[in-house]
Amino acid sequence: MERLKIIWPGKTKNKDLRALQEFYLAKIRRLESCRLIEAKEAKGLKDRDAEKIKDREAVHLEKHLQDDYIVCLFDKGREMSSGELARFLEKRMCSSRGVAFVVGGFAGLSERVLKQANLLLSLSQMTFSHELCRVVLLEQIYRALTIQKGRQYAK
Amino acid sequence: MERLKIIWPGKTKNKDLRALQEFYLAKIRRLESCRLIEAKEAKGLKDRDAEKIKDREAVHLEKHLQDDYIVCLFDKGREMSSGELARFLEKRMCSSRGVAFVVGGFAGLSERVLKQANLLLSLSQMTFSHELCRVVLLEQIYRALTIQKGRQYAK
Repeated sequence: MERLKIIWPGKTKNKDLRALQEFYLAKIRRLESCRLIEAKEAKGLKDRDAEKIKDREAVHLEKHLQDDYIVCLFDKGREMSSGELARFLEKRMCSSRGVAFVVGGFAGLSERVLKQANLLLSLSQMTFSHELCRVVLLEQIYRALTIQKGRQYAK
Repeated sequence: MERLKIIWPGKTKNKDLRALQEFYLAKIRRLESCRLIEAKEAKGLKDRDAEKIKDREAVHLEKHLQDDYIVCLFDKGREMSSGELARFLEKRMCSSRGVAFVVGGFAGLSERVLKQANLLLSLSQMTFSHELCRVVLLEQIYRALTIQKGRQYAK
């Protein structure tokens, strides 16, 4: 079983962000086993049906959440420095439970997924597009692992 | 004269980040005149010569700073929400002075450039790679302009 899981609905549509996602994932996997799960996304709904989109996507996201320590990305969550994230991950890695990072789609995460989180994490006071969030999160996970392993990583 | 200037040393090397940079720049330019200045970067120095790199790059960055309102990106700067950045930019755009965003290279910005800043801005408590910072900043400037103009922009 992978120690790290990253779960979000649907595939990243912007091709450059998708390429970066693969770039950071490959780097992470040199340091830690990591599975990316692109769960089913809600389709055929209008943007104004955000609640419906979140509910439908929650069902698919939840299928992939087992006995993991769940970290949901959330605008109003707790901010951490990269060093704090590194120490957090290091501590979690000592446990037998894996860590699952959950990132919402266009409409965000449903209340019921957020309620299951062990940690609500915010990447910034600023709002990033949900696809950019994915790349920033992966870069931060990679950075955290390099900090842990005492490796050099470009600023 | 452009109302917005964005200045950093050297060209973005990661091709996917460079593509995203162009993607967001094109979007910004549909809403506001904006010039990207890739100033001369320090070459031939070792990573450990960070101070020398910053000093040399400062000379080239400063050439492009005229009577602008200077915003330097800085880890320990002030954090803002996207809404706050939008209001800040809106206010600045009413002035005759343009706004210049300055982003450091690999080694960061020299003390003497930081001292000239009217605002030190931090994108996050987390440390992003300097090339990722560029993309996040551009996405935030675009987001700020769409908020100002009351346009819809994907979350």
